[in-house]
Amino acid sequence: MDLASVIGLVMAVCAILGGQALEGGSVGSLVQPTAAIIVLGGTFGACLLQFPLAVALTSFKSIVKAFVEPKGDNKAVIQEIIRFANKARKEGVISLEADAQKITDPFLKKALTMAMDGVEPKVLRETMELEISNLEEEGEQPIKFWQAAGGYSPTIGILGAVLGLIHVMENLSDPSKLGSGIAVAFVATVYGVGLANLVYLPISGKLKIKSRSHLIAKEIMLVGVISILEGENPRLIDDKLRSYLSRSEQEEEPQSNATGQRKAA
Amino acid sequence: MDLASVIGLVMAVCAILGGQALEGGSVGSLVQPTAAIIVLGGTFGACLLQFPLAVALTSFKSIVKAFVEPKGDNKAVIQEIIRFANKARKEGVISLEADAQKITDPFLKKALTMAMDGVEPKVLRETMELEISNLEEEGEQPIKFWQAAGGYSPTIGILGAVLGLIHVMENLSDPSKLGSGIAVAFVATVYGVGLANLVYLPISGKLKIKSRSHLIAKEIMLVGVISILEGENPRLIDDKLRSYLSRSEQEEEPQSNATGQRKAA
Amino acid sequence: MDLASVIGLVMAVCAILGGQALEGGSVGSLVQPTAAIIVLGGTFGACLLQFPLAVALTSFKSIVKAFVEPKGDNKAVIQEIIRFANKARKEGVISLEADAQKITDPFLKKALTMAMDGVEPKVLRETMELEISNLEEEGEQPIKFWQAAGGYSPTIGILGAVLGLIHVMENLSDPSKLGSGIAVAFVATVYGVGLANLVYLPISGKLKIKSRSHLIAKEIMLVGVISILEGENPRLIDDKLRSYLSRSEQEEEPQSNATGQRKAA
Amino acid sequence: MDLASVIGLVMAVCAILGGQALEGGSVGSLVQPTAAIIVLGGTFGACLLQFPLAVALTSFKSIVKAFVEPKGDNKAVIQEIIRFANKARKEGVISLEADAQKITDPFLKKALTMAMDGVEPKVLRETMELEISNLEEEGEQPIKFWQAAGGYSPTIGILGAVLGLIHVMENLSDPSKLGSGIAVAFVATVYGVGLANLVYLPISGKLKIKSRSHLIAKEIMLVGVISILEGENPRLIDDKLRSYLSRSEQEEEPQSNATGQRKAA
Amino acid sequence: MDLASVIGLVMAVCAILGGQALEGGSVGSLVQPTAAIIVLGGTFGACLLQFPLAVALTSFKSIVKAFVEPKGDNKAVIQEIIRFANKARKEGVISLEADAQKITDPFLKKALTMAMDGVEPKVLRETMELEISNLEEEGEQPIKFWQAAGGYSPTIGILGAVLGLIHVMENLSDPSKLGSGIAVAFVATVYGVGLANLVYLPISGKLKIKSRSHLIAKEIMLVGVISILEGENPRLIDDKLRSYLSRSEQEEEPQSNATGQRKAA
Repeated sequence: MDLASVIGLVMAVCAILGGQALEGGSVGSLVQPTAAIIVLGGTFGACLLQFPLAVALTSFKSIVKAFVEPKGDNKAVIQEIIRFANKARKEGVISLEADAQKITDPFLKKALTMAMDGVEPKVLRETMELEISNLEEEGEQPIKFWQAAGGYSPTIGILGAVLGLIHVMENLSDPSKLGSGIAVAFVATVYGVGLANLVYLPISGKLKIKSRSHLIAKEIMLVGVISILEGENPRLIDDKLRSYLSRSEQEEEPQSNATGQRKAA
Repeated sequence: MDLASVIGLVMAVCAILGGQALEGGSVGSLVQPTAAIIVLGGTFGACLLQFPLAVALTSFKSIVKAFVEPKGDNKAVIQEIIRFANKARKEGVISLEADAQKITDPFLKKALTMAMDGVEPKVLRETMELEISNLEEEGEQPIKFWQAAGGYSPTIGILGAVLGLIHVMENLSDPSKLGSGIAVAFVATVYGVGLANLVYLPISGKLKIKSRSHLIAKEIMLVGVISILEGENPRLIDDKLRSYLSRSEQEEEPQSNATGQRKAA
Repeated sequence: MDLASVIGLVMAVCAILGGQALEGGSVGSLVQPTAAIIVLGGTFGACLLQFPLAVALTSFKSIVKAFVEPKGDNKAVIQEIIRFANKARKEGVISLEADAQKITDPFLKKALTMAMDGVEPKVLRETMELEISNLEEEGEQPIKFWQAAGGYSPTIGILGAVLGLIHVMENLSDPSKLGSGIAVAFVATVYGVGLANLVYLPISGKLKIKSRSHLIAKEIMLVGVISILEGENPRLIDDKLRSYLSRSEQEEEPQSNATGQRKAA
Repeated sequence: MDLASVIGLVMAVCAILGGQALEGGSVGSLVQPTAAIIVLGGTFGACLLQFPLAVALTSFKSIVKAFVEPKGDNKAVIQEIIRFANKARKEGVISLEADAQKITDPFLKKALTMAMDGVEPKVLRETMELEISNLEEEGEQPIKFWQAAGGYSPTIGILGAVLGLIHVMENLSDPSKLGSGIAVAFVATVYGVGLANLVYLPISGKLKIKSRSHLIAKEIMLVGVISILEGENPRLIDDKLRSYLSRSEQEEEPQSNATGQRKAA
Repeated sequence: MDLASVIGLVMAVCAILGGQALEGGSVGSLVQPTAAIIVLGGTFGACLLQFPLAVALTSFKSIVKAFVEPKGDNKAVIQEIIRFANKARKEGVISLEADAQKITDPFLKKALTMAMDGVEPKVLRETMELEISNLEEEGEQPIKFWQAAGGYSPTIGILGAVLGLIHVMENLSDPSKLGSGIAVAFVATVYGVGLANLVYLPISGKLKIKSRSHLIAKEIMLVGVISILEGENPRLIDDKLRSYLSRSEQEEEPQSNATGQRKAA
């Protein structure tokens, strides 16, 4: 569970509704189905016109990703690669055959299989870098989808407000309805601006950060497998791969593992 | 037929008109020929001043592209190239003469013809990369056209509203006409903002995604032909080209073809 | 004459004035010298403060470029270079002395003269690429000038409106003048937004497209001269240079010329 | 203490409150807890949804960094490296063992330790450049956090104003409360726009400048250690590293140190 | 004296004040010390919080640069370098010792001194390119400062207007003061938008153009010194360096100098 996402969303919604209640307004007056139809229908209509159906579905599914902790752990990945490197140094790359079968990550599996097949480091790097840039592009699609939604939503909210004001202006003869009519019109703005700034854009940003961290794991795998293939010293591989970790990850565990490797190497 | 585009456009238009109807306004009050003349005339006047006539015509034709599924299939392209690679390995590149004649894609045809003419890989790559960047630039023109239209449209909608308000202000003496005058003025904003956000910008975005996928096909062809020319192992070519496919395309067909190639190779 | 530019500008102006007339407003009420002084004086004052005097003059002159067809024809350039390539192949690069004297384009002349002077291809490329990036930078100046004008104009239009509203607010005691006062104030917005979106920004865009096509001609010349200097096969040079042409230019004339070259080569 | 930051913040707050007081308004009317709840709760809710919890905490801590002078002094770093370079020239790189133990900067320590361990310059550069880009990414997180806060804050301020106006419109029947109701609504805009432009965005900018200067120090260390490892002339190293200093830093101390080095070398 | 800057600023100010006078408003009503305190205090407070004190001071000093003609003359620089090149060719690089002492530009002096000290061209290039990127970064600081001021100023102008409107709304009971109160509030907008668009942003743009031209001079010096060091033909150096000049500078003096060099060479 990504606590920050949950706290953030709850805090934002409470601030808006609580603020409305504190000012003495009823929260109910913010519930306007017509405004919701215009803003949501317009925003996601525009998004469907812009993106393929598959991307739209993936984007809705990826909301979940913004609220759960990612499974991957870059330190565990490094440890596994160092284990492979030590084994490969002693018994040859081919001895990793059985280990490769057990790997669940398809990227690491493909890279290691290619390495054991005797593919040259340069070709292996080119192929796997294509895979990475492919994963990057796929990971960017939901980010762009929610960014686009965050771009359309406020302007369509304003569109809804203008539609409401047109309606109000046509009935100026009955001043008693003027105020409440304008109030209804403004709710569309609240929906459009609020959804964009409190939901769509922050989710897009969180997905971006998670996608970035996912790609770093793949990069660690690629650099690791190539280093194994080139027969580098496991201790040096460890030093190199640890540079991909953030400073806090590096500090948590004060290089005890690296030291262990140093002794082994 | 690109379902997402059709559903998206219909959903967006229904949301706006349905919302207007649900609020008790007549959809008819959104029909203002004067506002349409100002907004459409101003937007496409500005676009014609900015773009050459040929680009404007291509851009209007390319709207269709946003609503039909592209014919190309990158997996079929890869299969064909692997077939060529196997044949070239056994019988030499020159044996592809007859196959090259039957190719309908002008890009693949030119690349393969150059390869059979004995052009060096480096020169072939340079020439075909120029072609790709040329195709990219041409593909970007309608994208930029609709992006420009999406940029001009809202400001010209506001221009129309200001013109309407000037007219209203000059006739303040007759308050009974005030409301309906302002309503008319606001319709120009609805046209400008609505067309930009529900039509022009999403279509520009969809064209961008389709153009990108079109260019990937060309890149697969180029990398494939150069690999054939350099006499690479068909199995390796297959591995490399498959990296251009999205993960979903890769998973659909669980590498059965690649495995077949592996046996053949 | 660039038809698109003329049609675009006329269409945009007619849409605005026609819309005004159709709504029953007099076109005359859009003529406000004070608003024009504020908007034009402010915009071009800011532009002069931002750009050197020479750039400002060039930018005003370059408006003409947006309305005339460019003289250059990339296909003719390629044909001439292929002619040089054939001659140089048979009689040596030095035989082009007389032809070089007749060339009117200073860029091609300098490149060819350097080639005949025995300058090395690498040095020639460096020097001429500097010239190209220099031409690019000079071509960008009017583009940036009109872009800046398109950026300042709407905000200064709003400045004019605010100035007008201040004046109106100070004379609230005479309500009869209220409406017409506000109308005058709004005309500044119409000028600012209209000039930016219907004139400055589209002209900047058209100049950008024309400058790009101008630079491609220079790139064709450079690649051509270097290929001649390196003694490449004229047929290959033709293939390479044709990749710079847009697909429509390539299709118009179905490679008949290239075929001719093939025979000659 | 970063004087500019303190003066800047005090000047901005005084200008707003002083201006309010000079116009005859009470500063107290700018204190609206409801508006504060909406604007702050909405902004930081959105930020928490966008960023991981750890980044949010670091960002709040990093506010302090914007108000204190950084400890680092690039000239001192260069002097230390030149000292190392002279020693390494005379007694070999390995003689720096004891010095390396005393270094407090973990980056310089790691680089020097790798150098003494006999790591090749190319591998050392790759590893340490990864560290730098890692530090850069970590340094960018608070910058992006406050930039995001500066982006959300004004729109949520407007959201608060719209919520307030809805409330006002619903109570139009009591005109006496109209003005003060609108005033309250506007305070949300003041909070949103003011916090973004007078606090969040400037702090983000100051952190960016400080992070940049921090990275330059690391780059000086890396270039210095590699130069030592490659046995370059200390005088040349000094010339090279001094190029990283700003002109004012270079001028302060008129190359006396460099001259000293020259004599020594 | 940079005529364009002076004319531009005078034209812009006259257009605004003249427009105000022509509309019948008194220029005096645009003088509101309170608004000035809010807008100037807020803008420069935010700028001080964002930038170090030294950058703020440099930025204020650099306003002068936007109004004076730069001293440098790239053609004179080229002539001097060609003179050095001819001398170095005949009498060796070391013969430039006396000339180097007389050079006033510190960049050219350092480059030439390094060349005479026998520094390798590759190292000299690296070191001096660092100097250039350093100069570029320092030159960008005032540009960014005024750009930031141009970004803060309009929003703080709006902040001032909202503060004014809050004050007006609280005193709705006295309608006679309504208009003049709003007028005062709007003056803050005029200050904020006007200063940004007529002063801050144009000055930032002019400084950018001047900084660019300053850097080109340094690049000419660097390329020139390296060419001398590598013993290139002075005529070729002249051809290469002239490519950095704008077309108008090249045409002014129809290569008479270059021809002279050709004879000499």
